Amino acid sequence: MLEELAINSKIIMGNMEYGSDLLLELNNICQTKEIFAGKIEGIGAVKCATIGFYDQEKKEYIWNKIHRPMEVLSLKGNISIKDNKPFVHAHIVLGDHNSQVYGGHLGEDTQVFAFEYIIVPLQGDAFVRGFDKKTGLFLWK
Amino acid sequence: MLEELAINSKIIMGNMEYGSDLLLELNNICQTKEIFAGKIEGIGAVKCATIGFYDQEKKEYIWNKIHRPMEVLSLKGNISIKDNKPFVHAHIVLGDHNSQVYGGHLGEDTQVFAFEYIIVPLQGDAFVRGFDKKTGLFLWK
Amino acid sequence: MLEELAINSKIIMGNMEYGSDLLLELNNICQTKEIFAGKIEGIGAVKCATIGFYDQEKKEYIWNKIHRPMEVLSLKGNISIKDNKPFVHAHIVLGDHNSQVYGGHLGEDTQVFAFEYIIVPLQGDAFVRGFDKKTGLFLWK
Repeated sequence: MLEELAINSKIIMGNMEYGSDLLLELNNICQTKEIFAGKIEGIGAVKCATIGFYDQEKKEYIWNKIHRPMEVLSLKGNISIKDNKPFVHAHIVLGDHNSQVYGGHLGEDTQVFAFEYIIVPLQGDAFVRGFDKKTGLFLWK
Repeated sequence: MLEELAINSKIIMGNMEYGSDLLLELNNICQTKEIFAGKIEGIGAVKCATIGFYDQEKKEYIWNKIHRPMEVLSLKGNISIKDNKPFVHAHIVLGDHNSQVYGGHLGEDTQVFAFEYIIVPLQGDAFVRGFDKKTGLFLWK
Repeated sequence: MLEELAINSKIIMGNMEYGSDLLLELNNICQTKEIFAGKIEGIGAVKCATIGFYDQEKKEYIWNKIHRPMEVLSLKGNISIKDNKPFVHAHIVLGDHNSQVYGGHLGEDTQVFAFEYIIVPLQGDAFVRGFDKKTGLFLWK
């Protein structure tokens, strides 16, 4: 499934406040700015992180909690609609003091040390997430 | 070498069918949509992956096959022309159940569990890949 | 802090010369092209790399030097103004022959083997970096 959308003239660039919950704040920005389709990217650093791996057989997320500071080497996400609201789906790549790398599906309770993001809103029929039986995920319908 | 291109008003956003070959399907979309220049990004999950590392001395790819499910933490690629057709060059970052991370040059036989992508087509003189003696790679001429 | 910028009609796509210093050359392109706001992305390979981790307690960077060839799985960066000049802040994810992954804040003396980048310039009031006491970093004011 694929859709053609138009690029919006407005791009949002910003840095997040120290101590913010990274995922909640990205959702908050999209809801406040009424962005129903688009992409999100960013780099920065976090004080701790919660990252998930989807067990494709059991059809459930396994969550890992990292209790130490990490660089955010890549945050990559998209914006679509779930429960009639803008919904951010993002994956994150983190690096430690030894340049070792960890990553997964971004979960709540990932605390920002510093984070610089760029959101590209898209115009057109935004995707809506609905339950997909085959994968057990909420995918674009 | 550097070129100025224009952003296309149309952005393509989509999710890939379960079981697709990730690289072949990205090439397929670009060929079907006649996208000769642009960038590709995505996140998702795969059932297995084939990733390459280019040996800069021997000038050949070493391929590693990962035979287990992984999250796609980042797919980042570009579109140019090779053999008169749209050609996708992409690198991928993958994460497992322990949040351990693997990655390389995306090869064929990387099977999609779920994958959400955004393609930004660019307008202008698209780059054409040709053999580069120094590196042994097909680079933009 | 957040700002709305407009997308520029011109996107810059290019490949970097063999042996370039990746960070210096990205800064050089932005300074030559007078790009004061925007984002940078790329994939490729390097002959060696210098990557940093910011120690959030000591408020100083720890630098790791990787003395062997690596694939660039993801370079993600932004452009803003520091000392009245365009300034690139970028994070990099690297992969080796075993598909093991390393990464951090991109430093100087990261030598290009081949590198393909896309720069999206943005128009509007560009962010200016200034010292932030809480983090010890130069953040957008």
